[in-house]
Amino acid sequence: MPTPSGPFTGRTIDGLARDLREGRTTSTALVQLALDAIAELDPLLNAFVTVDAAGARAAARRADDELAGGADRGPLHGVPVGVKDLIMVAGLPASMGSRHFAGVAVADAACVARLRQAGAVVIGKTNTHEFAYGPTGDRSAAGPSRNPWEPARMSGGSSGGSAVAVAAGMVPLALGTDTGGSVRIPAALCGVAGFKPAYGAIPVDGVFPLAQTFDTVGLLAGHERDCLIAYRSLVPAGALKDDGRPGRVAWLDPTGVFACDPQVARTVRRAVEAGTGPLEELAFPAHEADELRETFTAIQSSETAAVHADRLAEAPELFDPEVLERVRGAAEMPGWRYVRAMRARPRLAESVGALFGRHDVLALPTVPLTAPFLGQRATELDGGPVAVRAALLALTSMWNVVGFPALSVPAGTVRGLPVGLQLVCRPGWEHLLFETAALGRARHGTPPAG
Amino acid sequence: MPTPSGPFTGRTIDGLARDLREGRTTSTALVQLALDAIAELDPLLNAFVTVDAAGARAAARRADDELAGGADRGPLHGVPVGVKDLIMVAGLPASMGSRHFAGVAVADAACVARLRQAGAVVIGKTNTHEFAYGPTGDRSAAGPSRNPWEPARMSGGSSGGSAVAVAAGMVPLALGTDTGGSVRIPAALCGVAGFKPAYGAIPVDGVFPLAQTFDTVGLLAGHERDCLIAYRSLVPAGALKDDGRPGRVAWLDPTGVFACDPQVARTVRRAVEAGTGPLEELAFPAHEADELRETFTAIQSSETAAVHADRLAEAPELFDPEVLERVRGAAEMPGWRYVRAMRARPRLAESVGALFGRHDVLALPTVPLTAPFLGQRATELDGGPVAVRAALLALTSMWNVVGFPALSVPAGTVRGLPVGLQLVCRPGWEHLLFETAALGRARHGTPPAG
Repeated sequence: MPTPSGPFTGRTIDGLARDLREGRTTSTALVQLALDAIAELDPLLNAFVTVDAAGARAAARRADDELAGGADRGPLHGVPVGVKDLIMVAGLPASMGSRHFAGVAVADAACVARLRQAGAVVIGKTNTHEFAYGPTGDRSAAGPSRNPWEPARMSGGSSGGSAVAVAAGMVPLALGTDTGGSVRIPAALCGVAGFKPAYGAIPVDGVFPLAQTFDTVGLLAGHERDCLIAYRSLVPAGALKDDGRPGRVAWLDPTGVFACDPQVARTVRRAVEAGTGPLEELAFPAHEADELRETFTAIQSSETAAVHADRLAEAPELFDPEVLERVRGAAEMPGWRYVRAMRARPRLAESVGALFGRHDVLALPTVPLTAPFLGQRATELDGGPVAVRAALLALTSMWNVVGFPALSVPAGTVRGLPVGLQLVCRPGWEHLLFETAALGRARHGTPPAG
Repeated sequence: MPTPSGPFTGRTIDGLARDLREGRTTSTALVQLALDAIAELDPLLNAFVTVDAAGARAAARRADDELAGGADRGPLHGVPVGVKDLIMVAGLPASMGSRHFAGVAVADAACVARLRQAGAVVIGKTNTHEFAYGPTGDRSAAGPSRNPWEPARMSGGSSGGSAVAVAAGMVPLALGTDTGGSVRIPAALCGVAGFKPAYGAIPVDGVFPLAQTFDTVGLLAGHERDCLIAYRSLVPAGALKDDGRPGRVAWLDPTGVFACDPQVARTVRRAVEAGTGPLEELAFPAHEADELRETFTAIQSSETAAVHADRLAEAPELFDPEVLERVRGAAEMPGWRYVRAMRARPRLAESVGALFGRHDVLALPTVPLTAPFLGQRATELDGGPVAVRAALLALTSMWNVVGFPALSVPAGTVRGLPVGLQLVCRPGWEHLLFETAALGRARHGTPPAG
């Protein structure tokens, strides 16, 4: 399958920033590149649900004027970005991928306001699995987002539109949200970088909730370094430390958690070890993986049903049928399971934290398989049948339970489809995720910036 | 009906303390009085499930020796106390009113340890509604505790044994727990004082949980001043302030919350106004009362079912049938309702707090009716049918939702049965509850101390 390619493919934010400051391009020109690419590619890929050409052009002009006048907002100044349609952008519709919502948002979400302060130009809103409640990305009132590597396949989700927009080179950067893997899963399936910060690191004000004790704003870009640049603009100065010490990395055996395509595991491990050298292997206690999964489900179900109970009672017909069925199921999760799950979290965070006793970073596949077909709900994995949704979430949701930061970076392809390497650390050690990812990239010899 | 009477009826802790120090009695003698009263009265009243005669006599001897040697632990030194059988006492059985538990507790609960440090002598364990899950006090593996005013009537619960032990004069003081009214309800129905401190004021370590975000250790005594003396020994020095300012008291119309026997309302109001003079009347917004009730139920059900889910699955036959039915119902409370209820609490605390804008203390009946008969589950109240359990909890559980302190004091009788005046304040103003109660008592002319 051909590697997807658009005007921003292979270009980095650093490179764009240099070009903007050295007169080789303007924000207005970058916005036009994005708009043209969307016009050309999006009828097939369905990454965007709203394109704000007029607003983006006006913002680009202001960015150009500021730069020309010597007012420089930093690396994102003039850079076009996509925003997941679960995140409010003032004056633009916010559908949450659903038929329940019509009107436009009155104010920017906090993360959008911060990106704009850093000079970023919002191009439009990207497609999302309805209410972000699904890792497949193929149930949206706007239709499924499609995988640029093979459009009959799913993008993954729920931030599918953001991953597709970046993977197809329509924009260099997009905002997503990650409650159980919704940034990392589509990043892995579409072959881009996706960063889920620590819980609470980026404010979720103005983001439609999925499960409020897991919800995290995240970033998608072609290169992990661009996620880092955007992350820096979203958190207070000094939030990222860097003690200069290289991270101690271990390989976490994914088969201790869930069935894993052996080729995926091998490819991902080879990708990380190309940078780090051979890694010590850690195993996850199986009962703990089960408990993390059950804890995730009890909490997500209860919190999601709390968000939607009124809609479920008053207008069930407006939900996508599959999402409706899931919300109905979630509404039946007993309260006592939620109580127990919430009490288990500190203990689980402690025992997961203990995995980091002698290591700073754990490496594992982001997703144990490559992108299934749109609408596919069952598949085979390592010789046994698995549910697609469970498989997609299997290696990501546990990090939401404990609130740890996790980065997914492209790690090659298996049978022509991209796979992701997931790097996880404790809160406060985020810089080591990016350093570790860069190691592999350096040895691999990636395309030059810009 | 005759007023119940035992050796500690009409005696106060201050009076006992004076007698002990002035040689008119000894702790050993007080313990013997308690043991004799239990032997005489408890076959009928069933207040105690365990009596530790040997342990109490030994502790009394130590207390007497200390006092004789000049080591004075303060007003509780040598005073016999009962402890609800939900609270651990080292070496004594802890049945929680249930057939699920056999063995003895290995350590004292934190509150028991503090009472002992203050010199109190544990006489035994008092009967409780099974697992404290019921305000009627008539479903215990040990059989129902009985109201000393009329033994065919319920004591109220769940701290029924503690209320009965104090009301019948078997002990001057007892520990209870209050999750939705479990100290105040039996105090009111049995004609004694019951104090539920602010949530978190007394540690619950070593107390078997009912609903952990409501559970509170409380105190029962013949006089509210004795609750205050015991409370002082259970909280850090300085926890109780006293700015000398008299409390501004308002009457809270109970009929805005639930149906109320007009004679009960009239009697209680007259009792408080005898001390304070005519009170301004406040009304509770009806929708808020409903929301407080729903919030209480969603949270108590979920948290209680979380405590009992394993017992429910493994040994349902060991539960009392009515309690089993209630735990089964609680296990069906959906998680999303718990999530919403927990989110509603800060808002509810704020709007309930607003009732205290121009007043420090709200006065209302503790319970809107007098003690029903044992096993009675339906009655008439103000001309309409009500469920007994709902009626008993109607005026108390809302204060657990918001975590405010509340004191119930005897306020006379209606048709020969005692009724309680409930005084509520914001955390930090506890001293005003006791001052307000004392006002009424002073004007009424209560029996002299000791």
